[in-house]
Order: sequence, then C-alpha cells, then structure tokens
Amino acid sequence: MSKNQLIDYVQNFVSLEDDEAEQFVSAFEEVKVKKRQFIVQPNFTNRHRSFVVKGAFRSYAIANDGQEHTLQFAIENWWISDFNSYIYQHPATLFIVALEDSTILQIEYNTEQELKKANHKFETFFRIMAEKGLAFEHRRILFNLTHSAEARYESFLSNFPNFVQRVPQYALASYLGMTTEYLSRIRNNRTDKS
Amino acid sequence: MSKNQLIDYVQNFVSLEDDEAEQFVSAFEEVKVKKRQFIVQPNFTNRHRSFVVKGAFRSYAIANDGQEHTLQFAIENWWISDFNSYIYQHPATLFIVALEDSTILQIEYNTEQELKKANHKFETFFRIMAEKGLAFEHRRILFNLTHSAEARYESFLSNFPNFVQRVPQYALASYLGMTTEYLSRIRNNRTDKS
Repeated sequence: MSKNQLIDYVQNFVSLEDDEAEQFVSAFEEVKVKKRQFIVQPNFTNRHRSFVVKGAFRSYAIANDGQEHTLQFAIENWWISDFNSYIYQHPATLFIVALEDSTILQIEYNTEQELKKANHKFETFFRIMAEKGLAFEHRRILFNLTHSAEARYESFLSNFPNFVQRVPQYALASYLGMTTEYLSRIRNNRTDKS
Repeated sequence: MSKNQLIDYVQNFVSLEDDEAEQFVSAFEEVKVKKRQFIVQPNFTNRHRSFVVKGAFRSYAIANDGQEHTLQFAIENWWISDFNSYIYQHPATLFIVALEDSTILQIEYNTEQELKKANHKFETFFRIMAEKGLAFEHRRILFNLTHSAEARYESFLSNFPNFVQRVPQYALASYLGMTTEYLSRIRNNRTDKS
C-alpha cells in the first residue's frame, strides 16, 4: 500500500515502467515511528533518507544557548533527513522527531547510490528532488530576508495550510524565525480582525 | 582555455572520457562581462546557468523598503543563477551583477535538458551540483539561526578567505544578515585585538 504511494509520487517526476517502479520501491523499507520518537540525532550519521507515507516530522538544531531552531517540517509525500549528514555520511547536527504516530519509507545511503547508478531515470528523479529542494531554500532565505514576521506567517498559512494544525506553536515560531510570544500575538491580531 | 577549466571542474565529480568532456563543454558559450554589468534582472527569465571562469558576481533582491539583500556570491569555479527562475523558467526575482570584469561559461536551459538526457554521467553531475547546493544552504540557514553576528563573520572569513577582499562591505553585511555599520564595528574590534 505505502509503496504504491511512493510510486505515484515518483511518477509525477519520471515515467517508470512497471518493473522499474518495482525495482525502485523495493529499495525502500517501511518503518513505523511513534510520536516523539527520534529518527535522527546529533553525532550519529543519518544513514537513511525518509519518505513520509503518513504522519509528521520536524528537524531542528539546538543552539549553544539551549534554544531550538526548526529547519524543516515534513508531512505526507515529503522527504526528511539531515541532508548534510546523509549526503556526506558524516555525523548529524540535527534532531528529527515524529510529531505524530507515523509511517515512513526509508532508503539506506549505499542502496540509493546503487539505485542511481543502475538506472538513468532514478538518477534524474534524485536530481529533480535536490533541485526542487535547493530552489525552495532559496525562496525561503529570500522571503525571510525581505519580509516582516507577519508576512512570513501569512505566507506559511497560504502555502502550507495543512501544516499549521499539525505542528506545535513553538516549532512553527522557530521555523519562521520569531518567538512563540510574537507568533501568538500575530495569531490573536488575525482573530480580532476576522 | 576556459573550457579546460570547466572540464577539470567536472572531472572532480564524474569521470568523463575525452569525447564526453568535449560534448559537455561544447554545450557552453564563453561570455565576457564588464564590472557592474547585470547578467540577470527581475522580471526577465534567467535562461542560463553560469560557471565563473574568472571574476566575481553577486546575486541579490531588493525588498519593498528598498533594502538590498545578498543571496549569493560567486568567484572562480562557482556557479551562479537565479535558481528558481532557471529551473522553472519563470521570471527572475534576483539581480545578478558582476563585481569585477569577468569571464563566464553559460549553458542555455534547453541545451542543459538535452545534455542531461543524452548521458547518465551528465545527469549525475547536475544531481551532485544540486545536492551540494542544497546541503550548503541548509548549513547556512542553521548557522545563521544558531550563531551570533560575530561568529557568522568569523565563519565566513575562515570558509571563504578569498571572497572577503573581493566583495563590497555592504554586500557582505547583507549576506551575513547584519547592517554595514555593525559589520565595520566587528572588523574594527578584530583589528584592535590583533
């Protein structure tokens, strides 16, 4: 079941024959993760790239002053990893935690390398994933630099309406680069207006 | 000459036969750019990906309040584009300007698609470029979130010693997310200490 979801996702980007789709998804393993369980922790190498079948995750770092900073969220049909740790296979700096009981499909680093070598289309797929990710982070950096906290929250609401109910306030605030207090002030002001 | 520089660069990531290297670089065109000349401007689609053979570039956005925000720098052996505009072929939001008289090698969007389709190794090369870029931006976002302005400047100095003499102060300040005044205060404090 969950593997069909991944095949449907991949087919949005590259067109696979049945045997190719089968080869692709058989490289992945289904893993159930409980709410609050960690799939990546600092100092351990992030050996897997994870596709979210069901559930929600958050990746974050803890600064020297103890403050948490959210790098990414992921829900259904998103990928999550400590990307620096994964692609260079060196120790992670991020925590990745399940925000809900979740199901993921994981591929191991070496298996992914073999997959990309085996079929040009698989290589194309991972190239497109990285390019979309890079373009997304450029948009995010630019948007954060050029917009107010209010505008960043409004943009998150309109781009990711499905996330807002599922991620904790403090995590969303740190993703948007503001304090939890400031985020609740923005939300209260919105409610007053509506 | 400049095409050999690109071949040497590409061979760091994928191993090309002579005829493959020739096919790869013949897809690029050498362009000379004068200092202060723009190679990308907002509202025009960024049709090329550019490899810097010699010189220096800066990409930036202008916010509604008129403030400039630097997204990237590029010197020799770096790539520069408005990546969102380039990969989706829609209008740019960035300016990209030459900081020095420069030489670049440019590939046109459709030519790049054909190149990637023609040879699995070329696809691998662009996949690696995108993955390295994504990992870099993740490090940058996290570092900015978790470190002080002073630490951001020190890190830039130690990671990119070659950039510091070649980029204007106000551009570096906006890349590091601080005012020009604050950056010169940090630099003066360093000089006092040494």
